[in-house]
Amino acid sequence: MTVSASPQLCLPAGFSFSAVTAGIKASGRPDLAMVSCSSGTTATALFTRNRVVAAPVIVGRKSLAESRGRVRAVIVNSGNANCATGKLGIQLCHGICREAARLLNVKSAEILPSSTGVIGVPLPAEKIKARLPELKAASAATEPALRQFAEAIMTTDTRAKLASQRVGFARGECVIAGVAKGAGMIHPQLATMLVYLFTDLAATPTELKSLLRTACDQTFNCISIDGDTSTNDTVLLLASGKSGVQFTQPGIRAKFSAALREICESLAEQIVSDGEGVQHVIRLFVEQAKNRDEALRIARAIAHSLLVKTAWAGADPNWGRILSAAGSSGVPIVPERVEISIGSQTVFRGAARHFDPVKAHHELSQPRCDIRVKLGRGRSSLLFHTTDLTAEYVRINAEYST
Amino acid sequence: MTVSASPQLCLPAGFSFSAVTAGIKASGRPDLAMVSCSSGTTATALFTRNRVVAAPVIVGRKSLAESRGRVRAVIVNSGNANCATGKLGIQLCHGICREAARLLNVKSAEILPSSTGVIGVPLPAEKIKARLPELKAASAATEPALRQFAEAIMTTDTRAKLASQRVGFARGECVIAGVAKGAGMIHPQLATMLVYLFTDLAATPTELKSLLRTACDQTFNCISIDGDTSTNDTVLLLASGKSGVQFTQPGIRAKFSAALREICESLAEQIVSDGEGVQHVIRLFVEQAKNRDEALRIARAIAHSLLVKTAWAGADPNWGRILSAAGSSGVPIVPERVEISIGSQTVFRGAARHFDPVKAHHELSQPRCDIRVKLGRGRSSLLFHTTDLTAEYVRINAEYST
Repeated sequence: MTVSASPQLCLPAGFSFSAVTAGIKASGRPDLAMVSCSSGTTATALFTRNRVVAAPVIVGRKSLAESRGRVRAVIVNSGNANCATGKLGIQLCHGICREAARLLNVKSAEILPSSTGVIGVPLPAEKIKARLPELKAASAATEPALRQFAEAIMTTDTRAKLASQRVGFARGECVIAGVAKGAGMIHPQLATMLVYLFTDLAATPTELKSLLRTACDQTFNCISIDGDTSTNDTVLLLASGKSGVQFTQPGIRAKFSAALREICESLAEQIVSDGEGVQHVIRLFVEQAKNRDEALRIARAIAHSLLVKTAWAGADPNWGRILSAAGSSGVPIVPERVEISIGSQTVFRGAARHFDPVKAHHELSQPRCDIRVKLGRGRSSLLFHTTDLTAEYVRINAEYST
Repeated sequence: MTVSASPQLCLPAGFSFSAVTAGIKASGRPDLAMVSCSSGTTATALFTRNRVVAAPVIVGRKSLAESRGRVRAVIVNSGNANCATGKLGIQLCHGICREAARLLNVKSAEILPSSTGVIGVPLPAEKIKARLPELKAASAATEPALRQFAEAIMTTDTRAKLASQRVGFARGECVIAGVAKGAGMIHPQLATMLVYLFTDLAATPTELKSLLRTACDQTFNCISIDGDTSTNDTVLLLASGKSGVQFTQPGIRAKFSAALREICESLAEQIVSDGEGVQHVIRLFVEQAKNRDEALRIARAIAHSLLVKTAWAGADPNWGRILSAAGSSGVPIVPERVEISIGSQTVFRGAARHFDPVKAHHELSQPRCDIRVKLGRGRSSLLFHTTDLTAEYVRINAEYST
C-alpha cells in the first residue's frame, strides 16, 4: 500500500468533477467547483466545533440528516466563507442548493454546500447560480478534472493537495481519493480546512461515520499551524459503492481503515507543510503519556506556544521553552522524569544534558525535524504535525484586508 | 487617590533597596538586587501554576511556609532563571539564602529568592554570593535605590516598571509601592513576571493573602502578550507594619484593597505596553457574559488567537476573526446575540454592520484601542489587557540564543 501524493492519481468509480471561474475571488482564478456522485452514494461528514458556524455548515448538517446520508453533489466556492452573514446567508445557500438540485434532477437535501474565504461579506449567490449549468456541462470522471476541483477550492494555499490509493482485497479492490485545502487557521477540531474523500466502497452512512472519526482523530485532529479553529471546517467522506466491494465482507474493515488513514495522513501533512509562512515542519512525538488525551494536551501546549514556535523559526534548540510549554499544559508532569530530544540528540533528561548545539541548530534548520518528548508517565504516544511561526506568517495575516 | 506610575514615587517605611552588577547578564548591566525589610515584616506570595517550576520558586514556597510568612530580605537575580537545573539548582539557591541570612543576621527561611532569565543554565552562585556584602552595604530606603532595584531585575524589558500610592484613612495613612518586570511569556496564571509589592500597613500573612489574590485576579490574571506561562512567576506582597495602621481597624480594608488593585493595574498595564515587539495595546472589554469565568475564557480565546493578533498588528478591523476566536472558546455563544465594537464603531450586531473601515483602521492604528465584545448572555463583564503580534516579536524570539 502506497499513497500517491500527486504524481499519478487513481479515481474511484462513480464520481465526476468540474471547476469554473465565477468571479468571487478578486484574483480571477477558478473559485467554484463541483463533485457529482452516482445514485446511491452514501455520505458522512465532520464539521467544525466552533460555535460560530458558517451558513453552508448549518445547511449541510441539516441536509445530511434530512437525506439520511445521501449525497448527489457537492458545490464548493472559495473566496467567500458565507459566515456571519445572518439569515440571508442561509437563504442564499439554500437557493444555490435548490438551483443545483433542479439542474441535476435530484433532491435539494442531496446537495452538500461548502464555502471558504472571507467572513462577514454577503455571498454573491447570483454569480454562483449563473455558472451552475457550465459546472454541470464540464463535469468529468478524469484526473485533470479532479485536479481542477482541487485548485478551485484553494484560498491562501500555494499548491493543491491530493492523495489516492488503490486497496486490494481477497475479492475485488476499491479506490480512495482525497482532496484538501487549508493553509491558515489550521488547528485540531478542524480549521479552515475542507477535505473531501471519495471511495467506491459500498458502505452505509453509519459505517462511514465510524471509519471517518477514527481516521480524523489520528490525522487532521493532530495538526496545528496557528491554533485557530475556523467556522467552516468540513471533512466529507463519500462512498459510491461502484466497486462492488461491501464494507461488511470479511477482511475489508481493517485494511480499508488503514488505507483511509494513510490518505488522511498524507493530506494532513500536505496541509501543514503548505502552512502560511512555514519554514520548518516539526514532527512532534509525545511519548510515555498516561493516555491519549494527556499526550494530545501536551502536544497542543507545545505546538501552540509562541515562544516555542518562534524558537523553531530561528532553528534555536531551546528545549527550555518546550519544557515550560509542556509544564503549562495542566498535565502534572514531573520534570525529573521528562526527556526531550531534538533531531538525533537527547538535550534534556531530568536536567540539561551536554549536547552539540551547532548540530542541533543544523538539524532544526532542515525543512523537517523530529522532536521527541518522553513524559515518563505511561505507555500512550502520539505523533503531532506542526510548524514554526515566522515573520512571514505575521506579514501574510497582518495585511490590511477588510 | 492617584497612582503615580513613575514621576515621583513614595516609599513605604521599613524597606530598603540596592542593586549591583554580579556579571550574570552578558550585557554587563546590573543583575543582582535586594530588598531588605524591617523586623516583623509579614509576607504572602503567589507563584506560577506551571508544573515546571524554577528552583527559587520551590525554595521560596518552602521558606514562606517554614517562616510562617515572615520575610527579612528578597534576593533577585536576572540573567539566569535557575530552572530545569535539577537538585544542584536547589542546592545553589539554598546556599545563597544561607549566605545572605548569615550576613543580615536573620534566619535562612526569612530570605526569599527570585531568579529570571535563561532556562537550563547552571546558576553562577559564587558570583552572586561574592556580591552580597556589597549589596548589603548599598542598601538604602530611598527612591533612587528603589529605581535601581527595578532596573536590575529587568530582562528583555525596555523600561523599569514602578508604581506607588499614598492611602489616607480617617486615622493615619499608609503607602503602597510596587515594582514589576516582564515583557515576554506574559500570560494569566502569571508569566515571566516578577512583581514585588511593599506596604507599611500592619497585617497578618493570611490577611495579605486574601488581599493579594483579589488584586491579582483582577489585574495580572487579566493580561496576555503571548499566552506563554513562565516557570518563575512570583508576585510578593510585603507589609512592614511601620505606618501603625492596622488592617483590622474599621474602614481600612476596602480602601486599602482598592489602592492595591490600582497599583497592580498600573504595573499590569506597564508590563503589557512594554511587551516584546508590541505596537498596539488593546483594552478588550468582554461584556454580558453569564459569569466571570466565561468572560475570561472568551477574552483569552480572542487574546491568544494568532489571526486576531496579526490583524491588530496590521490595524485591520477584521471582526470576523474576533467572532471566530470567541466561537472557538467553548462558551456556547449565539452569534445572533453578539455585538462587537472596534474603537467608537459597532461593526457587528448579529450580522455585519455598515461601518467606516477607514475610521476603524485609523483607530486601530493608535498605540491604544478599545475593543468591546457583548455576548448577550448575562451581566458579568471583564477588562482584559492584551497586544498585537508583530514580526518584531517573532524576530526577538527567533534569534538563535541557546
